[in-house]
Amino acid sequence: MIRAGIVGATGYAGAELVKILSAHPHVELTAVTSRQYAGVPFAQAFPFLRGLTDLVCEEFDIDAFSDKTDVVFTALPHKLPLSIVPRLIEKGKKVIDLSADFRFSNVETYEAFYQPHTARELLGISVYGLCEVYREKIAQAQLIGNPGCYPTTVLLPLIPLLKKGMIDTAHIIADSKSGVSGAGRSVSLGTHFCEVNEGFKAYKIEGHRHRPEMEEVLSRESGELISLTFVPHLLPLTRGMLTTLYTRVKGDFSAQDIMDCLTSFYKGRPFVRIFDDVSQPPDVRYVQNTNFCDIGFHLNRDTGQLVIISAIDNLVKGASGQAVQNMNIMLGLDETAGLL
Amino acid sequence: MIRAGIVGATGYAGAELVKILSAHPHVELTAVTSRQYAGVPFAQAFPFLRGLTDLVCEEFDIDAFSDKTDVVFTALPHKLPLSIVPRLIEKGKKVIDLSADFRFSNVETYEAFYQPHTARELLGISVYGLCEVYREKIAQAQLIGNPGCYPTTVLLPLIPLLKKGMIDTAHIIADSKSGVSGAGRSVSLGTHFCEVNEGFKAYKIEGHRHRPEMEEVLSRESGELISLTFVPHLLPLTRGMLTTLYTRVKGDFSAQDIMDCLTSFYKGRPFVRIFDDVSQPPDVRYVQNTNFCDIGFHLNRDTGQLVIISAIDNLVKGASGQAVQNMNIMLGLDETAGLL
Amino acid sequence: MIRAGIVGATGYAGAELVKILSAHPHVELTAVTSRQYAGVPFAQAFPFLRGLTDLVCEEFDIDAFSDKTDVVFTALPHKLPLSIVPRLIEKGKKVIDLSADFRFSNVETYEAFYQPHTARELLGISVYGLCEVYREKIAQAQLIGNPGCYPTTVLLPLIPLLKKGMIDTAHIIADSKSGVSGAGRSVSLGTHFCEVNEGFKAYKIEGHRHRPEMEEVLSRESGELISLTFVPHLLPLTRGMLTTLYTRVKGDFSAQDIMDCLTSFYKGRPFVRIFDDVSQPPDVRYVQNTNFCDIGFHLNRDTGQLVIISAIDNLVKGASGQAVQNMNIMLGLDETAGLL
Amino acid sequence: MIRAGIVGATGYAGAELVKILSAHPHVELTAVTSRQYAGVPFAQAFPFLRGLTDLVCEEFDIDAFSDKTDVVFTALPHKLPLSIVPRLIEKGKKVIDLSADFRFSNVETYEAFYQPHTARELLGISVYGLCEVYREKIAQAQLIGNPGCYPTTVLLPLIPLLKKGMIDTAHIIADSKSGVSGAGRSVSLGTHFCEVNEGFKAYKIEGHRHRPEMEEVLSRESGELISLTFVPHLLPLTRGMLTTLYTRVKGDFSAQDIMDCLTSFYKGRPFVRIFDDVSQPPDVRYVQNTNFCDIGFHLNRDTGQLVIISAIDNLVKGASGQAVQNMNIMLGLDETAGLL
Repeated sequence: MIRAGIVGATGYAGAELVKILSAHPHVELTAVTSRQYAGVPFAQAFPFLRGLTDLVCEEFDIDAFSDKTDVVFTALPHKLPLSIVPRLIEKGKKVIDLSADFRFSNVETYEAFYQPHTARELLGISVYGLCEVYREKIAQAQLIGNPGCYPTTVLLPLIPLLKKGMIDTAHIIADSKSGVSGAGRSVSLGTHFCEVNEGFKAYKIEGHRHRPEMEEVLSRESGELISLTFVPHLLPLTRGMLTTLYTRVKGDFSAQDIMDCLTSFYKGRPFVRIFDDVSQPPDVRYVQNTNFCDIGFHLNRDTGQLVIISAIDNLVKGASGQAVQNMNIMLGLDETAGLL
Repeated sequence: MIRAGIVGATGYAGAELVKILSAHPHVELTAVTSRQYAGVPFAQAFPFLRGLTDLVCEEFDIDAFSDKTDVVFTALPHKLPLSIVPRLIEKGKKVIDLSADFRFSNVETYEAFYQPHTARELLGISVYGLCEVYREKIAQAQLIGNPGCYPTTVLLPLIPLLKKGMIDTAHIIADSKSGVSGAGRSVSLGTHFCEVNEGFKAYKIEGHRHRPEMEEVLSRESGELISLTFVPHLLPLTRGMLTTLYTRVKGDFSAQDIMDCLTSFYKGRPFVRIFDDVSQPPDVRYVQNTNFCDIGFHLNRDTGQLVIISAIDNLVKGASGQAVQNMNIMLGLDETAGLL
Repeated sequence: MIRAGIVGATGYAGAELVKILSAHPHVELTAVTSRQYAGVPFAQAFPFLRGLTDLVCEEFDIDAFSDKTDVVFTALPHKLPLSIVPRLIEKGKKVIDLSADFRFSNVETYEAFYQPHTARELLGISVYGLCEVYREKIAQAQLIGNPGCYPTTVLLPLIPLLKKGMIDTAHIIADSKSGVSGAGRSVSLGTHFCEVNEGFKAYKIEGHRHRPEMEEVLSRESGELISLTFVPHLLPLTRGMLTTLYTRVKGDFSAQDIMDCLTSFYKGRPFVRIFDDVSQPPDVRYVQNTNFCDIGFHLNRDTGQLVIISAIDNLVKGASGQAVQNMNIMLGLDETAGLL
Repeated sequence: MIRAGIVGATGYAGAELVKILSAHPHVELTAVTSRQYAGVPFAQAFPFLRGLTDLVCEEFDIDAFSDKTDVVFTALPHKLPLSIVPRLIEKGKKVIDLSADFRFSNVETYEAFYQPHTARELLGISVYGLCEVYREKIAQAQLIGNPGCYPTTVLLPLIPLLKKGMIDTAHIIADSKSGVSGAGRSVSLGTHFCEVNEGFKAYKIEGHRHRPEMEEVLSRESGELISLTFVPHLLPLTRGMLTTLYTRVKGDFSAQDIMDCLTSFYKGRPFVRIFDDVSQPPDVRYVQNTNFCDIGFHLNRDTGQLVIISAIDNLVKGASGQAVQNMNIMLGLDETAGLL
């Protein structure tokens, strides 16, 4: 058994990792760290895991932790991985980082939206872990920058179309809606039940940090500088994310062309499901607690307007599931191990 | 007291009308009809109204009903009003119809999306009841086509900008999200709690009937033929509707210009609230159980991309509240009577 | 107009008071205090009130505040009123305190469950503000201890039956369920959306502070020392509270006797609605945003087991609505003013 | 691989069975029947299963169905199994019936609450499939009456205590709360989203059919005729059920005695988790999508009043999960196969 550890296991993404890895057929979860819950059994902090894990949260200690693990997930707020990940890499661990710290190729972009990057030397070796697109690079990587949840919903449908030059790069709008778990487990008035329940609103309309992440990848894959209009909204539900994309097809591409492009790109990729019936489009309910990304679309032939809809579970394909999928690829395991 | 009646009172819009009118200071609700609940006390069908109304549902009978009422709300599925409204008009009643049957100027458009229109002669006298825009016409009208819920969220923010020629009519996208009460009270798998709760999806992507209603009004007000991209989604909540509009400003209009346009247009209109702080945008929670339409926006100066957000309670400003507002205007009452 | 003020207006009960009083026909809300939001317009802190109030939150200053108000609501966490209320009383204000600080007759009980009582002299003049039971005393009072939400659901159905000696005082169980707003607006993991949504659990099984409050009143009204089994649960909804009471009838009282007892006790009391059809029992939906307490029951003739169900909106009849009802009674106004 | 089939697969319990069995390591799901969806791919009716099953719904035909299956789940409304199950038994199939039709030993009780029993001869061989209590009998059985959801929450905590004579059989109250999926997938006003969301109410207070099912088993296990007070309530959530039980301990049994009784009874039973910390009681969130039954309790030493709380997922341990657990036991497989 390969030994896995999680640094920062008591957020929602961390707990989801514990859940997935506790049932993984080829990996044993051997260490979980948490400042807040050090010394506390994980199943006491998250009682849904009673009977499924006996692990006790520990303070992070690089040596003790390294002795127990072969592959490491860092599920910390951004900035913290900048000091921890280099030490894990130095110890020879394979690392999947769930923060934004190792997602960017362009360090200036990162620094414009986050903070000074103090582990720049690793940006050269880190791979953006969008599994269906960068599978080959991921298989060779020691360090993965696991994609953001919103970017996963935007990039998976757009990249195949951009690579084929089928859509107008000047007009791309992403109207995204996320469940509340995407806001994390820290307490704040904004996640108080009564401030969210029976509510719906946009937030960070002026500039969510996932926009530059998406723009970097879209620009790289299309060969054009792409500027995206991105408006995230908060759904009154726990898990799930749905993005409605608005763009225009170039030339006279048909709905069948779009369908062919998507199905051929994702042929043999078990976690992307293309919906072919516009009367039954993706619903976040269909992907909850799964690693699937569902994609549907509608092309208005008269106007060329293309509407694409994608849905994921923000904690699974949008975070921990994709992280485990990355691990599976890095370790040469079946990509779906522990994820179906 | 003016005497009001409701034909078709036991849907969600009907019950909301009963609630509002039961507390109206200048109007007495004197008759409510329902096929399904004929003979049943209204407060038995809707127990939240126990102690607030003693009315008993009756079968619709034109003579009996006319004897008891001065102003009539028809809250029926479209097509039914085509046979009932002409008789009420003939009896001299003021009528506010909540269906689509008297919303269209262009009967061909109506017939393309609904059915043959068998009361065409009334289209010449009916007024589209978007209160803040057509107040003067409403004050003179005998028959109101009460606007759809989605159109209310789209038209109120766009009309002032279109009248001033501030936005690009070639690029207007409306990404709308509605609570489940918008689907009505009829039972269907689509409104089963377990099929909606913790879910989110788009529906009728190919062509919702509210699109031609919006396009007709937008085209009339702008003087240009406007084609709208409109995608409605279903929110897992009971009441509330939010639309995120994407368009582009023309020329070099600034955010301040947009703000000035909206605030001057809605000056003195108590039910439209313009939000000036993009960090606190409209939320459906703020308008629930009210007749307000909240509007906020963000202009990206670099790209000219304008994002506008509007929110209403679909059963109040999107249906029954606006219907009562129309009645108040028609009767020369304070526009806000019974609505604050 | 009578001038009203609220000390501690930015919790959920405070905001509900602002909403009710802003529309009250005989009272003008003239001052709202908040430490956290001092200097902030109330409608900025609670945007649903935009256009409905222009008040700005202020720090509490006894002199400035007293100059502006005739009647005062204190909506603070318990203990704080102990130092503020005496000064308001001294200034001659009528005070309705929404905390537990002036609810108890027996100061030892209060001190056993809260803290030392530093305003004992006021316990002699304070009246427990259960409006339907203590109307006459309330009309004469200068200081009201506004009842807790759970006690309101338990006391209103039980007191009439206890006064008539109809139920077995040795076996009373209250299984209560409350919406999340009952936990207040302070942030904590326990009210995080994701910790409550799609969840349901009991809490404080060992001893909720509302139990001694209920026991004191039940014992007083029955003339017997009553010990209650009380288990509160948390519902995944914002507003609403429902209690299922289990007890046994004495002797051979019938369902009709129970009904007669309740209807005669609450005759002419507009905010208590007795449900007579067990197939349509109270639902928290029926009382949301209202000041009603709905009561239904079922008696098993074979076993004598009596099940009573009561429902309120915890923020209205369970807090701010009852507080305004108390004010109306104290001021000699129509009991329902501002509450229908 | 053992071949399994489901008769009536397109209700919520049926779909949950398909989900569980599609991932079962030792069983292959080979046939699913549905009148309504005959000819439709199962994953079209339930899109969350896209990519996970290729089965197409078929009409039930005893011969075709029997040729394809070794073990059969009947997930039909009660009464229908009375005609289908005997034919499956005759064909030598092992059958787990999820309806009430084979749960009762006493046919008079069944007939008093359901309808005439037309397969009485099978009542002698059917076993009540409460896995943790009747494991040995289940292992030998050809026909299982799979327990109701409410009975599972009531029986699992009470049986160990009754067997030891620790509680007063004259005073047992079960206040139960269920998610909406328990009401099934048929459409009705009662399961309309807007009639349930933000609501909470009791239902069938006069007599739910699960009461005689519980009373029969409780009486059998205690050796006394037990009469239960049972009030079910409807929670505004999709999955989950929680029962709060009120009873009294006999003699001077302590909390530790209760704990010892429960833990020793359920030692080695992986799906029952005993909670030992009253400050962190069971929550339906902890058991959602799992086959666990969580049990916690609190004993008031002064009064002897015992409060027990149990929680399950009504579709898993309350229906399909327990059905698969029964199958595992009948087939001599690991009890947890496919269920963790």
